[in-house]
Amino acid sequence: MTKAIFIILDGLGDRPCKEFRGKTPLEAASTPNMDSLVKEGVCGMQSPLSLGFTLESGPAHFEIFGYTPFKKFYPGRGIIEALGTGAKLREKDIAFRVNFATVKNGKIKDRRAGRIKSVKSFEKPLSMKLKGIEFILKSGTEHRAALIMRGSNLSDKLSNSDPHKIGVAPKKVKALGKEAEFETEILNEYIKKVHQILNKHRINKTRKRKKLPEANYILLRGAGKFKEVQSFKEKYRLKGCCIAGTGLYKGFGKFIDMKLINVKGATGGKTTNVKAKFMAAKRALKRYDFVWVHVKATDLYGHDGDPVGKKNFIEKVDEALEVLKKVKALKVITGDHSTPCSLKEHSGDDVPILFNGKGVRVDDCVKFGERECSEGGLQRIYGKNIIPEILNLIGKQDIIE
Amino acid sequence: MTKAIFIILDGLGDRPCKEFRGKTPLEAASTPNMDSLVKEGVCGMQSPLSLGFTLESGPAHFEIFGYTPFKKFYPGRGIIEALGTGAKLREKDIAFRVNFATVKNGKIKDRRAGRIKSVKSFEKPLSMKLKGIEFILKSGTEHRAALIMRGSNLSDKLSNSDPHKIGVAPKKVKALGKEAEFETEILNEYIKKVHQILNKHRINKTRKRKKLPEANYILLRGAGKFKEVQSFKEKYRLKGCCIAGTGLYKGFGKFIDMKLINVKGATGGKTTNVKAKFMAAKRALKRYDFVWVHVKATDLYGHDGDPVGKKNFIEKVDEALEVLKKVKALKVITGDHSTPCSLKEHSGDDVPILFNGKGVRVDDCVKFGERECSEGGLQRIYGKNIIPEILNLIGKQDIIE
Repeated sequence: MTKAIFIILDGLGDRPCKEFRGKTPLEAASTPNMDSLVKEGVCGMQSPLSLGFTLESGPAHFEIFGYTPFKKFYPGRGIIEALGTGAKLREKDIAFRVNFATVKNGKIKDRRAGRIKSVKSFEKPLSMKLKGIEFILKSGTEHRAALIMRGSNLSDKLSNSDPHKIGVAPKKVKALGKEAEFETEILNEYIKKVHQILNKHRINKTRKRKKLPEANYILLRGAGKFKEVQSFKEKYRLKGCCIAGTGLYKGFGKFIDMKLINVKGATGGKTTNVKAKFMAAKRALKRYDFVWVHVKATDLYGHDGDPVGKKNFIEKVDEALEVLKKVKALKVITGDHSTPCSLKEHSGDDVPILFNGKGVRVDDCVKFGERECSEGGLQRIYGKNIIPEILNLIGKQDIIE
Repeated sequence: MTKAIFIILDGLGDRPCKEFRGKTPLEAASTPNMDSLVKEGVCGMQSPLSLGFTLESGPAHFEIFGYTPFKKFYPGRGIIEALGTGAKLREKDIAFRVNFATVKNGKIKDRRAGRIKSVKSFEKPLSMKLKGIEFILKSGTEHRAALIMRGSNLSDKLSNSDPHKIGVAPKKVKALGKEAEFETEILNEYIKKVHQILNKHRINKTRKRKKLPEANYILLRGAGKFKEVQSFKEKYRLKGCCIAGTGLYKGFGKFIDMKLINVKGATGGKTTNVKAKFMAAKRALKRYDFVWVHVKATDLYGHDGDPVGKKNFIEKVDEALEVLKKVKALKVITGDHSTPCSLKEHSGDDVPILFNGKGVRVDDCVKFGERECSEGGLQRIYGKNIIPEILNLIGKQDIIE
């Protein structure tokens, strides 16, 4: 066994739910496939950084993939999202995550412009050079996009313009350091210009006629500056690939120079085709040593405070695992953090993890779940232990001399 | 109880073996003495550095003895091995681990020169001054030796000449930094000269006549530079001693300025007299606060992929423990890392550890083994926790203010 399949169910961990008489969604779910992996495997709890510390998915993934401490490596969300759109970045490029929004009479009416299906047509008219700075707009899924700023000596000390609520005016981007003052002025001018262009764009004229929210404003957040890191392959001498539906995770895969495998139906949403992803993973194992599958919806149900939805989705994932049953590879399943339905937010609780495959020291656990795994043979491990433990178990460990 | 005996069974940890229906050698072994220590003690799993990370014995011992992070303190294997031969080193000396080997027609025929019994006679003819560098050769056990280079401004950025296989030519030592170029040239000249001297040496003439592999070449590895560290006694205010059969561990004992106690029959090999070592430990407890006993063979069986041998040897250790039965001291048993027989290599799996003595919080464990100890009261501890926990339990803890 020299290959591994690593499944991250985003926001998997949860807390006791009254709907399940104190069980968590994972504990309440019927998960025969996961349980059979547990019975022949070893379990534990995984804390991406340290118990009690709550992370966003970006930093959590950096810790889990061993780019730790994440503060040293994490270039900011904007960069990762930009890579996720397929943008090619250059050293020192600045990037923001962008939401196309609807602004009327100076106030935000809809932060997602009615979840407009695509903003690809806006890429060209919104990419331009302005006073020495090149602005490049790249569309993502639905209302999502990234804005790249290219120029000399640009800083990423830039505040968000997205106030994260409706009924208020978008904020102006502020310089968070003196060195960013000059570019901030140009950036705010650009945002204003974008508003004018979008207001006149034929797509918005059509949307107005159809009484759909116009995508006439860009809300910016998560400024970051691109810097290359050691690739996953160089770092671990593993040929890795990434199967993900959401821009952030695709972007992270790109950032560490993994091959992205696109799967039809892998939307990153609640209706995503998990089975198709696992089938793609099975095929990918022929060509890659390390197949990373990311599934987003567990986190979405957590944010929505929907424990039943989360439980049902976990059962769907478990059913889909059937296709990997006969696959001879180390199988690892965990989440990147907990998103308890009762909080509708990420939490600092640790997350169940299971390792199944040849050589593991099988423990007494029989069901995949928070309480059970907290008594597992691996006890508590940290994000940074996961890839080393995978290398250890597939016999590709680096012996430190 | 103010004294401690600390037993390291090298490479103790293992993985499930089919020979024992999924048990590890330690689990499969009949270990009544260890088990009775477990029943009245507290257990856990110990990871020298961090779960999943695989260490050589040198770095593992640095972590376990609290010289952490080892990267800050570890001077390279050559230095530790040189100290193990009894060499007296000076600040900034360079040292290599040396194998006496057999080279014929430019190719390595035997990396250990037929495990020649002693290379002590070569010490004198091979120690010389060459172009400003003093070369000092010190013999270890069998074919093993150390080469010390003394001079001004020497660097340890030197590659290995030992290719670790036979049938090929020995490598030339390469400078791994510009500052090492000058000395590398002289060192390679020295190695050549050594070959000439050895070819003509009377011992090799005799060996040739007897058709034994000649010890006519030196293979170098593990270059390091000596720098003093705080002694074990200063660091922990404990009078410590070391009972070990193998050069590396003796050398480490020397490095932290422990008293070395030589025991007849303590060979560092599979036929070592463990009982004699434990008896020596019992006597040493009269004069020392902290007696460290190192036993190598568990690791050797792991490297040989011999689970039955490993199990039998563990049973031999357990029998020998009988002599310590009535000794009133804190007893701690663990390994420095795992060497699973299925891998024949070190692994990043953690290692069982037990603490037995007055004051410990007795847990539910009844048998010394991987699975049992993973449910122990100490849970997972790290190398750096071991000596503090010993100090804690013998009432000699430092209270951090």
